[in-house]
Amino acid sequence: MSNGALALLVHGGTENWSPARWKARFDTVCADRRVVLLPEPALDPADVHYAAVWKPKPGELAAFRNLRVIFNLGAGVDALMADRSLPDVPLVRVAVDDLTDRMTEYVVLHVLMHHRQELYLRESQRARRWAPKYQWVAGALTVGIMGLGTLGAASARALRALGFHVVGWSRSEKQIDGIACFHGAEGFDGFLRQTNILVCLLPLTPDTRHVLNRGVFAKLNRDSPLGAPVIINAGRGGLQNEADILRALDDGTLGAASLDVYEAEPLPEDSPFWSHPRVVLTPHNAADTDADEISKYVARQILRFEAGGVLENVVDRKRGY
Amino acid sequence: MSNGALALLVHGGTENWSPARWKARFDTVCADRRVVLLPEPALDPADVHYAAVWKPKPGELAAFRNLRVIFNLGAGVDALMADRSLPDVPLVRVAVDDLTDRMTEYVVLHVLMHHRQELYLRESQRARRWAPKYQWVAGALTVGIMGLGTLGAASARALRALGFHVVGWSRSEKQIDGIACFHGAEGFDGFLRQTNILVCLLPLTPDTRHVLNRGVFAKLNRDSPLGAPVIINAGRGGLQNEADILRALDDGTLGAASLDVYEAEPLPEDSPFWSHPRVVLTPHNAADTDADEISKYVARQILRFEAGGVLENVVDRKRGY
Ligand SMILES: NC(=O)c1ccc[n+]([C@@H]2O[C@H](COP(=O)([O-])OP(=O)(O)OC[C@H]3O[C@@H](n4cnc5c(N)ncnc54)[C@H](OP(=O)(O)O)[C@@H]3O)[C@@H](O)[C@H]2O)c1
Ligand SMILES: NC(=O)c1ccc[n+]([C@@H]2O[C@H](COP(=O)([O-])OP(=O)(O)OC[C@H]3O[C@@H](n4cnc5c(N)ncnc54)[C@H](OP(=O)(O)O)[C@@H]3O)[C@@H](O)[C@H]2O)c1
Repeated sequence: MSNGALALLVHGGTENWSPARWKARFDTVCADRRVVLLPEPALDPADVHYAAVWKPKPGELAAFRNLRVIFNLGAGVDALMADRSLPDVPLVRVAVDDLTDRMTEYVVLHVLMHHRQELYLRESQRARRWAPKYQWVAGALTVGIMGLGTLGAASARALRALGFHVVGWSRSEKQIDGIACFHGAEGFDGFLRQTNILVCLLPLTPDTRHVLNRGVFAKLNRDSPLGAPVIINAGRGGLQNEADILRALDDGTLGAASLDVYEAEPLPEDSPFWSHPRVVLTPHNAADTDADEISKYVARQILRFEAGGVLENVVDRKRGY
Repeated sequence: MSNGALALLVHGGTENWSPARWKARFDTVCADRRVVLLPEPALDPADVHYAAVWKPKPGELAAFRNLRVIFNLGAGVDALMADRSLPDVPLVRVAVDDLTDRMTEYVVLHVLMHHRQELYLRESQRARRWAPKYQWVAGALTVGIMGLGTLGAASARALRALGFHVVGWSRSEKQIDGIACFHGAEGFDGFLRQTNILVCLLPLTPDTRHVLNRGVFAKLNRDSPLGAPVIINAGRGGLQNEADILRALDDGTLGAASLDVYEAEPLPEDSPFWSHPRVVLTPHNAADTDADEISKYVARQILRFEAGGVLENVVDRKRGY
């Protein structure tokens, strides 16, 4: 340990996670701190005071009994929350403009694609058919955003600026200029009844699992020039019931879906989503997090914490996000 | 003529233009005015003081010697300017928020599609391939807007708000917050040298015909994560040299193109654009004008004019737009 600064463990439990690159980044932004990777035989677990992790295997952090803060190297902590032996210290998630802006790009793009009838227009192009169709304005549609946190609130504002009506739904009450905000179980149906395009930016928790299901789709608003409503899920795959989505697309309850996340990832090769003509799918890259921005964010928080300041974006373990 | 109000001729010269519906609209918004369509045998041409027209055949307006104002029922007056016998009275073009907002939707959608690698992602989906690719942020690209008039300035602002660098080019000098503005022939190369995605919102005039040509494509900036630059034309087909676009796409000078307008419309069935894998085409519907908004706009201008006020958006016949 150099300069007496407390050690930082950097660890990821997924295949495509690159330990060496993450260590190099943290060596740069935490220049006078010992940065260690697992496995590290020479390491006394008691020396580790911080952990910056992405999907560690359940139990992997239990041995570090002097941990002070765990940093999750992404916005969603659902994978970590499943670890019953996770040390009971503050757990910080990522909230950086870089990630928020990328998600806003994704949401604006996919809302505009459905609003501007891109599926129809590409089909016409393939058929060499010059067949302009009636096109309504953004203000003719209401986009409903599930989740008005860091990501949802930013998407809501960007869509409002483009002329869409925007409604939102969250757990607690919110006030956002120009956006009609609903909350809680009591506010859910009122929110759905107005929504033509449903955008899901919720965290995955026991309360939100499979919230995108047939009963919910059936309550969406069909009374717009879009006709059958559209869903866009960039939260987590566990939020959606995939069999329900397919059935709803096929019986007309839904007109189309943009999906970035799936119950199983990578999406299995035999998933019917791949070839469904009204599914626009992306490989969980709606908001790739910029690793440099994230490591700087973690380094800033450690400095602030050691100076007696308050940690930002601490997860509420009871709520699960 | 009721109440002595001066007659308004409403006329369109294209096949899909619906005379009866336009007359009905003007009967509503100009309730105490005589609204006539052509042919109208009982009409004394000397009684017609206003004309609201869309692509009349050359010469059709010459007989109306008491015309006071001609209203073009769209933003682009290139078709009208080709009529050498057009009466020499103020010619007003359309500039309404409804049209501007629609064009902004189109431009934002197509810029985002190229920025977010939609062509690649759709190809991956068709191939059932889970293959996320490196995705840069909006700020890594510079969008260059040709034409900073009603439409170009609005698109520039919307793209800026999403995080893109934006540069613009116009005939006269401009200042727009957050946008680097170039102008005139002297400013053109500097503008192109920065531009990764070129958006054309120019009017078609003798000066701008075929401005989208090979020499221009070759000057665009290739030094961005996008690689080969992209063009988006929603101005007029006459602005583009279509053979040059195809050659540039095929030899890598351009990476992709979104086209809404064509040298011949409807786009001929044998055009190579239809099946080109890097052309995203739409059937000249980037900004369908809402007929109700346009007729209200004309009615407002007539009232203001008759009250001694100034006409808005009068075309400069010498410049051609
Ligand atoms: N696809 C991708 O590439 C990608 C990238 C990053 C993140 N994500 C996902 O996006 C999620 C959201 O991120 P964020 O940073 O915006 O999170 P956040 O700031 O914590 O916001 C979460 C929002 O969801 C609401 N919420 C949570 N549980 C709810 C419930 N049971 N009922 C109603 N509303 C509920 C919260 O309500 P309150 O405001 O009342 O607490 C809050 O508004 C992440 O958890 C992650 O899964 C996906
Ligand atoms: N695809 C569609 O559905 C659709 C719909 C509506 C309109 N349009 C097209 O969009 C065009 C633009 O509309 P608008 O309302 O934005 O027009 P506008 O307000 O008249 O703006 C035209 C812009 O182009 C610039 N310009 C003209 N000639 C130029 C030249 N030789 N060199 C450099 N800049 C030049 C002008 O420069 P200054 O500012 O210096 O004058 C101005 O900034 C219309 O003419 C029409 O053809 C297409």
